Amino acid sequence: MTTRVGVTILGASGYTGAGLFALCEAHNGVEVRAASSERSAGEALSAVFPRLSGFGDVPLLPANEAVEVDTDVVFLCLPHEAAMDVAPGLLDRGRTVIDLSADFRMDTAEAYEAWYGVEHTAPDLLATKVYGLPEFRRDEIARAKLIAVPGCYPTSVQIPLAPLLSSGMIRPDTIVADSKSGVSGAGRKLSLRTHFVETNENMAPYNVGRVHRHVGEIEQELSKFAEQSARVVFSPHLVPMNQGILSTIYVDLVKPATTDELVALMVAHYDGERFVRVVEHLPETAFVRGTNYADVTAQVVDGSDKAIVICAIDNLIKGAYGQALQCMNVACGFDEGEGLPV
Amino acid sequence: MTTRVGVTILGASGYTGAGLFALCEAHNGVEVRAASSERSAGEALSAVFPRLSGFGDVPLLPANEAVEVDTDVVFLCLPHEAAMDVAPGLLDRGRTVIDLSADFRMDTAEAYEAWYGVEHTAPDLLATKVYGLPEFRRDEIARAKLIAVPGCYPTSVQIPLAPLLSSGMIRPDTIVADSKSGVSGAGRKLSLRTHFVETNENMAPYNVGRVHRHVGEIEQELSKFAEQSARVVFSPHLVPMNQGILSTIYVDLVKPATTDELVALMVAHYDGERFVRVVEHLPETAFVRGTNYADVTAQVVDGSDKAIVICAIDNLIKGAYGQALQCMNVACGFDEGEGLPV
Amino acid sequence: MTTRVGVTILGASGYTGAGLFALCEAHNGVEVRAASSERSAGEALSAVFPRLSGFGDVPLLPANEAVEVDTDVVFLCLPHEAAMDVAPGLLDRGRTVIDLSADFRMDTAEAYEAWYGVEHTAPDLLATKVYGLPEFRRDEIARAKLIAVPGCYPTSVQIPLAPLLSSGMIRPDTIVADSKSGVSGAGRKLSLRTHFVETNENMAPYNVGRVHRHVGEIEQELSKFAEQSARVVFSPHLVPMNQGILSTIYVDLVKPATTDELVALMVAHYDGERFVRVVEHLPETAFVRGTNYADVTAQVVDGSDKAIVICAIDNLIKGAYGQALQCMNVACGFDEGEGLPV
Amino acid sequence: MTTRVGVTILGASGYTGAGLFALCEAHNGVEVRAASSERSAGEALSAVFPRLSGFGDVPLLPANEAVEVDTDVVFLCLPHEAAMDVAPGLLDRGRTVIDLSADFRMDTAEAYEAWYGVEHTAPDLLATKVYGLPEFRRDEIARAKLIAVPGCYPTSVQIPLAPLLSSGMIRPDTIVADSKSGVSGAGRKLSLRTHFVETNENMAPYNVGRVHRHVGEIEQELSKFAEQSARVVFSPHLVPMNQGILSTIYVDLVKPATTDELVALMVAHYDGERFVRVVEHLPETAFVRGTNYADVTAQVVDGSDKAIVICAIDNLIKGAYGQALQCMNVACGFDEGEGLPV
Repeated sequence: MTTRVGVTILGASGYTGAGLFALCEAHNGVEVRAASSERSAGEALSAVFPRLSGFGDVPLLPANEAVEVDTDVVFLCLPHEAAMDVAPGLLDRGRTVIDLSADFRMDTAEAYEAWYGVEHTAPDLLATKVYGLPEFRRDEIARAKLIAVPGCYPTSVQIPLAPLLSSGMIRPDTIVADSKSGVSGAGRKLSLRTHFVETNENMAPYNVGRVHRHVGEIEQELSKFAEQSARVVFSPHLVPMNQGILSTIYVDLVKPATTDELVALMVAHYDGERFVRVVEHLPETAFVRGTNYADVTAQVVDGSDKAIVICAIDNLIKGAYGQALQCMNVACGFDEGEGLPV
Repeated sequence: MTTRVGVTILGASGYTGAGLFALCEAHNGVEVRAASSERSAGEALSAVFPRLSGFGDVPLLPANEAVEVDTDVVFLCLPHEAAMDVAPGLLDRGRTVIDLSADFRMDTAEAYEAWYGVEHTAPDLLATKVYGLPEFRRDEIARAKLIAVPGCYPTSVQIPLAPLLSSGMIRPDTIVADSKSGVSGAGRKLSLRTHFVETNENMAPYNVGRVHRHVGEIEQELSKFAEQSARVVFSPHLVPMNQGILSTIYVDLVKPATTDELVALMVAHYDGERFVRVVEHLPETAFVRGTNYADVTAQVVDGSDKAIVICAIDNLIKGAYGQALQCMNVACGFDEGEGLPV
Repeated sequence: MTTRVGVTILGASGYTGAGLFALCEAHNGVEVRAASSERSAGEALSAVFPRLSGFGDVPLLPANEAVEVDTDVVFLCLPHEAAMDVAPGLLDRGRTVIDLSADFRMDTAEAYEAWYGVEHTAPDLLATKVYGLPEFRRDEIARAKLIAVPGCYPTSVQIPLAPLLSSGMIRPDTIVADSKSGVSGAGRKLSLRTHFVETNENMAPYNVGRVHRHVGEIEQELSKFAEQSARVVFSPHLVPMNQGILSTIYVDLVKPATTDELVALMVAHYDGERFVRVVEHLPETAFVRGTNYADVTAQVVDGSDKAIVICAIDNLIKGAYGQALQCMNVACGFDEGEGLPV
Repeated sequence: MTTRVGVTILGASGYTGAGLFALCEAHNGVEVRAASSERSAGEALSAVFPRLSGFGDVPLLPANEAVEVDTDVVFLCLPHEAAMDVAPGLLDRGRTVIDLSADFRMDTAEAYEAWYGVEHTAPDLLATKVYGLPEFRRDEIARAKLIAVPGCYPTSVQIPLAPLLSSGMIRPDTIVADSKSGVSGAGRKLSLRTHFVETNENMAPYNVGRVHRHVGEIEQELSKFAEQSARVVFSPHLVPMNQGILSTIYVDLVKPATTDELVALMVAHYDGERFVRVVEHLPETAFVRGTNYADVTAQVVDGSDKAIVICAIDNLIKGAYGQALQCMNVACGFDEGEGLPV
């Protein structure tokens, strides 16, 4: 390719930003032209992440300088609130904005404010954004200027449930999602919760019920697949490992079904998809670690009206920067798998 | 105490047997007089477990020699099938038998055979055994000659649910128990599943639904608390840590209730119990690691008819040898907490 | 014991302070009458450490209030600099002070200032303090009013080398100590270094050479055993585990010797010591985890004039609060092993 | 590339074989045409490694069938002894053999027998093989028919020491290498040593001194760089992590030198090398995890005649299959970095 697509990464000194940078460096069609970090502006990215020594020697700019660099695509690897501050200006300049924060995932300002507790400062954009799950909105993503990349937990819940909800096979009002996440999901910001000694050799639930902010996003999107209001009990847990989410999901069947029927729905739905594997074994996070895969399966509970649906993803890749790159590939007309680890 | 109670440990070279040995060594009222191991007979226990160097220099006998040593209490830390082979003979000689295997947990030979796939060779004893959950059967344990110590998962499910089931607060037919266990629960026997590289940095479900052998035990015992047939969907998971079980349990309320009401039932039920803590935070396995505690709580899911009930135990201690020692303390008239780590 | 010894713990909200509190609670001869924490004053200790729920419900006072409570023994689990601020006042009131910080370990103010980079504010006390390694200074500790508990790394280096240096068997000027520590050694203070994702699945050296502050303490104390100036190359490493130090130490023999001769020196030296085990296997941290043991061995390198000396301790117990309690037992006339985990 | 180089992997069901398979699948110039496994012959590779689902559905053949498939390059991911059994026949058929076992690393049959305790059955090949360290034998590898890929520990010791030994800067007879390895180095074969519960939360030395089989290989190769007999004290340790080796190496300087001088030698030596990074920070295994990099540095110990030399590699990649692929790239005329993760 003679001309590469220019890319800016705002927020390159976190785990998603740095991981995205590394994927872009190995991508044949793009070139990272600017990267920002508030806390590490002025340093090289490789000083913040020594693993990037040698090829990550891009200087980190303050965000207000980075946005001035002329590029085609801007990834926002920023905390929520920060993303909605910069997105409008970038869109005005004609950039394609791929936002990894939560700021544009909700469809209404009311829903955003209810779940995130702050006023939305760019509410008009909520209706124009495309929710970046390529397996379901490929055509819209191809035309999008603003893409809201799904949260890690919501990705792990939607991918396995979508075929079952859209076929009317399961009840949307009785979903229990018990999710287990590696610690990188909490980011690089220091907290006692992610202090090694507190987390190692520990299995910890947190924000169980309908409390975690991802509940709003999950219910909003599942409702679309179900074409009726979906409701989820969601229990996230922290697991002593770096990467990976396993979601074990309990659903009520609308009418009796067999495991084979559920699996067949999944297989049909994901036929031809490169990053969703309907597997014959139970998914485990190690099987998808370091890849953009979502592994899924389903099982009817013997002699009951319940089924267990399981999904494993790498929370940083399919759950964040891999999916963001997949969206960019679609939006920019690259091969959808270009640069994505399998 | 002038005369110590003599103890035999059959199967001392596994994690539960060795842990039980260490607790007995620190116990003021007992003395380990014999210990057996098939694979390591002839060696010192400290050769098998170097951490016991200095005070674990008891010789390991073959089981057939160890049973000849005259002691008051015999702990069976044996695989299932092996326990029911030796128990009748020991009882005939008047020993108190505390069995940590599954062989005497089921109430009928039919149930045992259904869940374990082998014929029960001492079916008459099933009716005479006492199920060793001291918080519920203290008086029976005090008189028992054969005590069946509960399984680790069943302990973590029964303790939090008992107060809610016996008060009729929750439906017994819709219980979903999503349990996460440290790797020591799989014992010291080698398998690819417990090979370090396969398990580290991995979160893995296994035997989900109504497949795991502990389902039979859980349903049998929960039915007693509920005074009607209980049914559980049970999903065990393997967590990359050594010790601990966290059970996150989803239940349907019979009628609307508040979190405070559920917690109050637990508090009332466990008033005075030394090893059950109704905690105000969400239980985590690190908070009970190395102790005989079961930490429990419950929470009504906001605006729904569901509740989340959580329990954390150390799978080896309250889930195995700690509970066995607690049973022994009750059966032998010791202080119930003697020798138990808190 | 009718009257218990009253104990104050200053700095109870760190790992050593909380661990010491738990040991004291289980100790038959002492009673914790006050505990302090600057950041958590006003809270219960169990709110800071939920694992202490139920028996750690002691209120945390600011240090200036805690020192007013009249007790016999005051443990300083404080950062360096803070300890030397409070020690003089406590000694003036007749308290026995057991300091777990570095403030009184060095013998001179010059040495302290050289290694810690701050002026010593109580230099007169340096000469009166006793260095709290009970295996070597039992009589002095019994009479001491100010005990400086050794650092974790220095403990793991001195215990194995003392017999070899004091017998003149090894050269004191060519010692290389390669030490590997669990993450709890860095305390509960947040840092990127101890952030789970950065530390897990990582093996990291730091401060190698003669840079780490413990070098001064190690050389000072080894020089006493050698009766000449000792010099050490010291390389600490961070290991992805919570607890434990393994020190692998390389020394030059003064004259040819056999492994048996080195081991015999160790055995003779530690004859009758309850917390030092000269083991026949290579020490591993798991074998001493949760105990006050130091496991040691030595090996002559085949056909060379070098030997490898190895020691494993639990960095928090024999390396910190266990050793502190052992000192207290000696100083207060208790059985030396009372309350110490083995 | 119109025609791909055909590749056979003997021993594809271990960690190195499967990792090599995945790299080959992503390599633009090669095609895996056969893969063998004794224990899993008849199964798909993805059944043995579910992470390879979808693209690892190559059938595993018994070795005697796999060798019949006509390919250009055969990788031997076999245990030692097995490799020397099949290599001669493969060479007779004109294949290029890249052996990841130890069978052809030693230069003489005597040395092999001394360190491995078995007779060498193809001693004539020892003189014709090329030792596969591309940074030092690129031209020979380009012409080689039999390449002996270095061991993981020897790679981590040679790369940092070569520049210092070949310049005569350090003494070759006083080298102490203290190496720390992740558990995957022990392979996928089950053993108590690599059982999760025994290894997790543990730091363990093993085979210290001059006992480990890699000592022979290390001394043989270091002697060539030094042009005189080199001697090493080598202490391997097992670290609770999957991947990575950190070698902390202690050397005596021949004459006084500065850190800058040592580092400058390294920089000059590795100028232009893509997989050796002379880094300004201390190497850590996390910085090279999942890559083919060797990160190195050196430091003179303040005021002494000793230096500390440090190297970090991923034991499975630069320490095994990555280096093997790098050798293949050189031998087959591909770009040296093709298909290698950075």
